[in-house]
Amino acid sequence: MDRIGATEGGGVERQALTTEEARARCLLIEWARERNFECFTDAIGNLFVRRQGLSDSPPVVLGSHLDSQPKGGRFDGASGVLAAFEALEAIEDGKIPTKRPIEVVSWSNEEGARFELGCMGSQVFADPSLLKEMMEQTDKDGVSVAEALDHVRSIVPTLPMRPLGSAIDCFLELHIEQGPILEREGKSIGVVTGIQGSRKYLVEVKGEEGHAGTVPHRARKDALFAATRITTSLIDFMEDPEDIVRFTIGRMEVFPGALSVIPGFARFTIDFRHPDEAILTSKGDAVFGLCEAYAGPCTVTARETMRFPAVRFDGRLSSEIRRAVSDLKVAHMEIASGAGHDARSVAPVCDSGMIFIPCENGISHNERENIKPDDLVTGASVMALVALRMANRD
Amino acid sequence: MDRIGATEGGGVERQALTTEEARARCLLIEWARERNFECFTDAIGNLFVRRQGLSDSPPVVLGSHLDSQPKGGRFDGASGVLAAFEALEAIEDGKIPTKRPIEVVSWSNEEGARFELGCMGSQVFADPSLLKEMMEQTDKDGVSVAEALDHVRSIVPTLPMRPLGSAIDCFLELHIEQGPILEREGKSIGVVTGIQGSRKYLVEVKGEEGHAGTVPHRARKDALFAATRITTSLIDFMEDPEDIVRFTIGRMEVFPGALSVIPGFARFTIDFRHPDEAILTSKGDAVFGLCEAYAGPCTVTARETMRFPAVRFDGRLSSEIRRAVSDLKVAHMEIASGAGHDARSVAPVCDSGMIFIPCENGISHNERENIKPDDLVTGASVMALVALRMANRD
Repeated sequence: MDRIGATEGGGVERQALTTEEARARCLLIEWARERNFECFTDAIGNLFVRRQGLSDSPPVVLGSHLDSQPKGGRFDGASGVLAAFEALEAIEDGKIPTKRPIEVVSWSNEEGARFELGCMGSQVFADPSLLKEMMEQTDKDGVSVAEALDHVRSIVPTLPMRPLGSAIDCFLELHIEQGPILEREGKSIGVVTGIQGSRKYLVEVKGEEGHAGTVPHRARKDALFAATRITTSLIDFMEDPEDIVRFTIGRMEVFPGALSVIPGFARFTIDFRHPDEAILTSKGDAVFGLCEAYAGPCTVTARETMRFPAVRFDGRLSSEIRRAVSDLKVAHMEIASGAGHDARSVAPVCDSGMIFIPCENGISHNERENIKPDDLVTGASVMALVALRMANRD
Repeated sequence: MDRIGATEGGGVERQALTTEEARARCLLIEWARERNFECFTDAIGNLFVRRQGLSDSPPVVLGSHLDSQPKGGRFDGASGVLAAFEALEAIEDGKIPTKRPIEVVSWSNEEGARFELGCMGSQVFADPSLLKEMMEQTDKDGVSVAEALDHVRSIVPTLPMRPLGSAIDCFLELHIEQGPILEREGKSIGVVTGIQGSRKYLVEVKGEEGHAGTVPHRARKDALFAATRITTSLIDFMEDPEDIVRFTIGRMEVFPGALSVIPGFARFTIDFRHPDEAILTSKGDAVFGLCEAYAGPCTVTARETMRFPAVRFDGRLSSEIRRAVSDLKVAHMEIASGAGHDARSVAPVCDSGMIFIPCENGISHNERENIKPDDLVTGASVMALVALRMANRD
């Protein structure tokens, strides 16, 4: 799989709904057909591989995503899809019948790199009312999700369509940790307790362009000065002695962006995360007031563009994960997820859970991303056992 | 002239060394040839129109520039070149012989919009050692000044080349004020006492990219946080109760510029101006220390990219300007220039001076830029008288 979109730096470039990502889908479908597993897709381009159960009850679903960051690593997402497929093959090899069907999923556009709203496939699956808005998202060249999906369909074999939001029994995702904790603690598996909540904002500051040499400061409406006062106040406000708050201003743009022109417009994004839903609400709501308070002579608009509530994984699936790692005598620990994952999107509609495997030096979203193969094998074994127990429970 | 590059909004788009600006040069050359004035150019593309004197002594030079800002006004620069040409024609019409030749100049790339180092032609004229560096400057499409000059030469009639830095007797520039003072005070002419000094910097902040959800703040090297701390400290440091300091951060770029990625790199420009050379030095030098002091865990490089010393216009030329406005009974006042002009670049190599005419509501670098025709006529009259007196003095 990692030969598709391989980069010189040892990573992969397989952004959502590109030719490369479509080729990755083709490969998974090819593998599935060799095992006589059926494949399905849906309106947002999620890809499902199904091993039939004895009944037609909602399936146990395992998986993650095949798309990558620009110059991303080989393991982010793909390791979760491949471990899931490995588990499915192992169950098939063992000729073990299951009451419920078991499926592997590759959710569409998890990364949100080419199309900015990430976890798009899993979000639309969980809430089909988002479909229209998501289809209209465009990449930086103006290509819409709808157009990019048509491109993917022109490459991938035609698959039966399944309605969005079909019932599923549970969803289990394996992912690399993208942090240094498991490696440092010498554990092969992290049992994920939950994913912190996250709020995203777009702040726009309107001032007035002017000549850097002639306009007195008292007469200026400098959008960059205002943006600086606002970001400083936000950084101070978000300071957290316990270091739990995650606060990032990832994009900052200033217009017209000329050396000797007072900026008339500035725009920046906020990514704010916290595991405690109450703090996510109170601190997150305060963003609007601070933007207003430090606008100076400029006009500020702050808009929330996305909100994911904090999620706790504490259902039957998580109990089964704990039982499996204990039965298999895997070195494991509990761990909270700082990053968002598809399991967060589907948690509101089904019992969801995650396991992490360690990654080298915690490096991710980077061509140098690496793992130990043994940890991935362990992860696939845990998935197979959990999937069997979930699929065959009463 | 303002039909060349005319915009729908009533301004002109005639950026340096474009086809449009070349067409403006063609028109000036055509007018010059109708009057049998010789035309010359030089290695950086300055354009000279010459009325012979009785001797070959260094010429009295009048002019400004024909290039515009993107969607600029009709009067910024062009009014100075056209007033100079009008003065030359008036002297020719009057058949008045002069001891020294009188020339009109259009300096190349004054605006620094397409090629960022403005006053390029006048700077290279005053210091030919800058030629190579300037020829290598590129616009945003990667076209160099050298290539753009070749393009201009393919459009404009072939002209005799003159060495850079040929001696000139004095340089007089008429320009619109680009501020509201003359209009407010009801004056037709501002006798410019000098141009404030100006220093430009490029500041680069190197941090470390990371995942907005996973990396604890204590482990971050957030280039945007560091840039914010630095710009805040600079804004505070540059605060001036007398409102004489001009301090602008016109460009701010953050990389990779993704919503959920901690910025690993940030870059911004500083434009700092002050009429007092001592303050320009002391406050300007402090920029480097402040950048260091607020770098936090990041690495900061601050580099000065340009410095123009404060210039005072107090030579013989300025006395003649004062005498002329008094003799012609023109409503006038003394005024300092906040903006840089070509006269600042050539001041180190010859007696230089400027007159301003009012512009409507002080608006400039804008399609709505406007003037009263009478003020421009007055300005041309002052230029003709000053040019004659300078050209015929002992």
